[in-house]
Amino acid sequence: MKKSIDALPLRNVVVDDPFWKRYVELVRGTVLPYQWDILNDRVEGAGPSCCIRNFRIAAGEIRGSFGGMVFQDSDVYKWIEAVAYSLCMCPDAKLEALADGAIDIICAAQQPDGYLNTYYIINGLEKRFTFLRDHHELYCLGHLIEAAVAYYRSTGKRKLLDAAIRFADCVCGIFGTGENQIPGYPGHEIIELALVKLYRLTGDKKYLRLAVFFIDRRGQEPLYFREETERYNRDFYWHDTYFRYQYYQAGKPVRAQTAAEGHAVRAVYLYSGMADVAAETNDEELLEVCCRLWDNITGKQMYITGAIGVGAHGESFTFDYDLPNDTVYGETCASIGLVFFAIRLFELTGDSKYTDVIERALYNGIISGISLNGTEFFYVNPLEADPEACEKDYGKRHVRPERQKWFDCACCPPNFARLVSSVGNYAYSQSADTFFVNLYIGGKIQADIDGAAVIFHVQTEYPWKDKVRISVEANAPVGFSLAVRIPGWCEKHCLKLNGTAARYRIHRGYAYVSRVWESGDTVELTLDMPVAIVGADPRVKENVGKAAVMRGPIVYCLEQADNGTGLHRYFIDSRTAFDSSFEPGFLGGTVVLRCRAKYLSGGGWEDGQLYRPGRSPEFEERTATWIPYYAWANRGPGEMLVWVHCRL
Amino acid sequence: MKKSIDALPLRNVVVDDPFWKRYVELVRGTVLPYQWDILNDRVEGAGPSCCIRNFRIAAGEIRGSFGGMVFQDSDVYKWIEAVAYSLCMCPDAKLEALADGAIDIICAAQQPDGYLNTYYIINGLEKRFTFLRDHHELYCLGHLIEAAVAYYRSTGKRKLLDAAIRFADCVCGIFGTGENQIPGYPGHEIIELALVKLYRLTGDKKYLRLAVFFIDRRGQEPLYFREETERYNRDFYWHDTYFRYQYYQAGKPVRAQTAAEGHAVRAVYLYSGMADVAAETNDEELLEVCCRLWDNITGKQMYITGAIGVGAHGESFTFDYDLPNDTVYGETCASIGLVFFAIRLFELTGDSKYTDVIERALYNGIISGISLNGTEFFYVNPLEADPEACEKDYGKRHVRPERQKWFDCACCPPNFARLVSSVGNYAYSQSADTFFVNLYIGGKIQADIDGAAVIFHVQTEYPWKDKVRISVEANAPVGFSLAVRIPGWCEKHCLKLNGTAARYRIHRGYAYVSRVWESGDTVELTLDMPVAIVGADPRVKENVGKAAVMRGPIVYCLEQADNGTGLHRYFIDSRTAFDSSFEPGFLGGTVVLRCRAKYLSGGGWEDGQLYRPGRSPEFEERTATWIPYYAWANRGPGEMLVWVHCRL
Repeated sequence: MKKSIDALPLRNVVVDDPFWKRYVELVRGTVLPYQWDILNDRVEGAGPSCCIRNFRIAAGEIRGSFGGMVFQDSDVYKWIEAVAYSLCMCPDAKLEALADGAIDIICAAQQPDGYLNTYYIINGLEKRFTFLRDHHELYCLGHLIEAAVAYYRSTGKRKLLDAAIRFADCVCGIFGTGENQIPGYPGHEIIELALVKLYRLTGDKKYLRLAVFFIDRRGQEPLYFREETERYNRDFYWHDTYFRYQYYQAGKPVRAQTAAEGHAVRAVYLYSGMADVAAETNDEELLEVCCRLWDNITGKQMYITGAIGVGAHGESFTFDYDLPNDTVYGETCASIGLVFFAIRLFELTGDSKYTDVIERALYNGIISGISLNGTEFFYVNPLEADPEACEKDYGKRHVRPERQKWFDCACCPPNFARLVSSVGNYAYSQSADTFFVNLYIGGKIQADIDGAAVIFHVQTEYPWKDKVRISVEANAPVGFSLAVRIPGWCEKHCLKLNGTAARYRIHRGYAYVSRVWESGDTVELTLDMPVAIVGADPRVKENVGKAAVMRGPIVYCLEQADNGTGLHRYFIDSRTAFDSSFEPGFLGGTVVLRCRAKYLSGGGWEDGQLYRPGRSPEFEERTATWIPYYAWANRGPGEMLVWVHCRL
Repeated sequence: MKKSIDALPLRNVVVDDPFWKRYVELVRGTVLPYQWDILNDRVEGAGPSCCIRNFRIAAGEIRGSFGGMVFQDSDVYKWIEAVAYSLCMCPDAKLEALADGAIDIICAAQQPDGYLNTYYIINGLEKRFTFLRDHHELYCLGHLIEAAVAYYRSTGKRKLLDAAIRFADCVCGIFGTGENQIPGYPGHEIIELALVKLYRLTGDKKYLRLAVFFIDRRGQEPLYFREETERYNRDFYWHDTYFRYQYYQAGKPVRAQTAAEGHAVRAVYLYSGMADVAAETNDEELLEVCCRLWDNITGKQMYITGAIGVGAHGESFTFDYDLPNDTVYGETCASIGLVFFAIRLFELTGDSKYTDVIERALYNGIISGISLNGTEFFYVNPLEADPEACEKDYGKRHVRPERQKWFDCACCPPNFARLVSSVGNYAYSQSADTFFVNLYIGGKIQADIDGAAVIFHVQTEYPWKDKVRISVEANAPVGFSLAVRIPGWCEKHCLKLNGTAARYRIHRGYAYVSRVWESGDTVELTLDMPVAIVGADPRVKENVGKAAVMRGPIVYCLEQADNGTGLHRYFIDSRTAFDSSFEPGFLGGTVVLRCRAKYLSGGGWEDGQLYRPGRSPEFEERTATWIPYYAWANRGPGEMLVWVHCRL
């Protein structure tokens, strides 16, 4: 089972295409500086983050009390991680100086024994690690490790890495089943995958052992969280929910888990760590568990946008085929975590079913999380929204019809930044003899294939156009396979090599062109992307009699700005024809779709007559205008709808 | 505007038909004894009511602390009121003795100045009337008055009436704008309509004046509730809702209110009181306000079952055309309150649009509140239910797929009992020269028309059969109009007098047969009741592309017990033909409907494939079996659905 596929070093991937370069630059030029201001409490109209301030207090620089969430430290760690990735792709001395400064502040707060968590440093170290269930110290350490590894790889600077190692070493001593050790594990996972990263960087097996420990202890009886709850007389907020300790994926051993349950972000972070541990320990059984959980999520609990975690109460999975469009939670972070899980399973299997989902989430439910101008964010990503319902229906209060400047729980914006600035890690992969093109992102990729330097030039206007051109640059002929993903949505593709039909074999959704490549060899892939009218499994109650509209990987929606109010009154049918046109100045440059549609009219209805027997409904002819889902809510609040009625 | 229509004395109406006699007997023989046991904490598996116990503690008979809701007293008052109505229709010495005993216990708790509320008697009288917003003392007094008036009218016994008068007199002195008076009003309305009842019985105008005061002070600036909240430093639970003080219908003067807002039961109780005050004071403007609020509710915020109050958060109205089927609250009490409001507007206008709604609510959203065996109750009446969603989707946690034995907040079951045992008051009305048949309930009605005793014998198997036979018995010929409601759902009716076509005029939805009647004269009304496929106004988002099935006044539903799971996969179309057959042994005796339907099949769907482009859905042919909505959930938990997909 050995993992044989890896990401390329991020600095070897230059993103340079109209679609993604805009996002990468937005993150570097706008999102990261904006978030730095947020972390320093300098944005008016956004509640104070207190994040940097907490570190200064913990370091004794200033006086004050802890502010923000108990896991507030993680916001700056994710920001540093995003900066690290961004610096790989594009050096930026000013950004690097800001990050160095942040690292100095962070390290100044570290305790002599390596402990580093501002909540307990400020509020009393004697209570540290007494509330693993909810207090997120290990979660913060996980993000610290991720930031430190990324920053070290990006800049070569060890200061944050050394701090992370000191804290990790401290934790290695404290957790375990030995005498005076804590046999617990984190309430919010992520440290598992972070420890594997640290192990991979340092080669120190104790980090891998701790990751294995956290995963295998989880959910074993007697439940650590139950004991902790009783010992310290804690409230248990989820006691009246059906998931109870499964909110933390800790109600039963992870190997006994068959369906994704509980808090969605925690779940996919855990599963990612499980996949990492499975890879490093050759644990076939654990990989099977991962695959089973993956199949459950993507086959039964995932929106067409790649959103997961339907329940607002607990930001959680609910049950199979429960996918309401207007009360969905669909946290941006959960889709990001799904991408983390997906890339790991891809690297273990080479199967496009995983990279298909990366594409689905990335182009839809993840980039929907940020405004086109880069300073406003969605935490919740609904597939249907009505401003009046958001205001007046308490069951939809979590759904916002406008992106927000920031959040009290500000996990999503920095998570978005770190994903987009490392998008090259998801777009391209390689194994000993194969170069994988997972996502069609244009640019220049330098690979080392069996000791030979090979440069790939990728030209494309994906996702708007159907052509991808990949040309090879190498000093000498070199034999390898070029594996290009044939997207699951694509029913017809054409692959040419140097202008004529290429010989290739399809394996797990990838087209493998295997040969000795010479400089100038060019592969041209055409991915037919007609507008598709998509249906949902009939077990998805909310989508019966409805359809979604996609073109290539892009999910479309109707928005009030183009179509007026009452979007639920539009009907298409399975033969509806669409016009598509690229509009460069519109919503950042996008393909807009238009079609004839029927609009259920009020004809014959008297005001005050809510119900009426027997008469067939009347329709008006209208033109429906569709925009990409990710681009909604950039023109003021209004209705939005993905799943539209479809006459059968 | 003078109110010219009245109910008949309840003892003059003997209900005797297969449908309603069962309910009346169920209330008398099962519901009322069961509820007495509940009030005395004698039902296993139902949480303690503490209601009678509180009175015993308040009377000094036993020691203990107050238990239950702050308005727990009202449960026994509603029970006594229901007993009073039941005794009118059917003497029952045992029940009367229980009620007398309850009254003794209640009266023993009354304070020397007339005050009577066990919460404050037990917890400290010095705090009484300091938390009008939430503490419901005036609400309890309202129910006390209603019970007292009903029991006096039914039995002639004054003990409870005298107690109610003493408490009402006490309150009359305390409330007002005079010096040392409280310029407030109740957080939960009902006392307004109760005070008008007391005024009508006693002729003492001070009760009417207090009702007028409560109504006209309500929502005047400075808001009493805001002042009370600040003065006593109270929490304000609704501060982050859009309705805020309109939760109590107290955010603006009642005459400025244009849409039903806030807690639904409170709203319709208030509006009923407003209609009473309008009638007694000839206040045309106030009547107009009532009519406007009525039109808003029934034209924009009412379910096809007569359920109102969609929002679980605050048991409240939300906004126009917001009528989701699976998250609806639709409290049984709210539909009962809507009936109270409706009968008052009917008595002021003689318009069938009000009695139509009484029929709609009564036969659907109200009797759905009780199990066929009479000992289990719904508080929430959904139009769509899925047991798994009720368990796992927190946004549907208020929806139960099974009726409950009792509730901590046990307003609905006694409210149901008092409505059903006074159903004769809604079925028949009279003015000086007209006898109104509002509902088709069989039995014998003794009326006094202009000094002449007239007996009406009504024979029907309504709502299952379309015939109603009304024969007149009188000692001498007597001139009057017989006005029979032609239901709004009925598109074709036939009215015969003594076997031949009757001469009549239609006025406000009633067919008036005006003549000099002789004993033996018989009117036969036929109300064509084919199965109707009913659509909703297209602004009701959830019902677009769907239809409901009705026959006569009865709304039907699909239930899992008959149709398997996945009810959302059934499709009918506007030409679907139905078989209907009366099944005497089934669900208490009911007409069952059957039709051919299409069931969206899983054909062609692979497991794990949630979304799929381009293919038309496949259908299986099935027989769909429909039962009356009110009879669902009598065969164990399962799915239920009212609005079914309808191919256009």
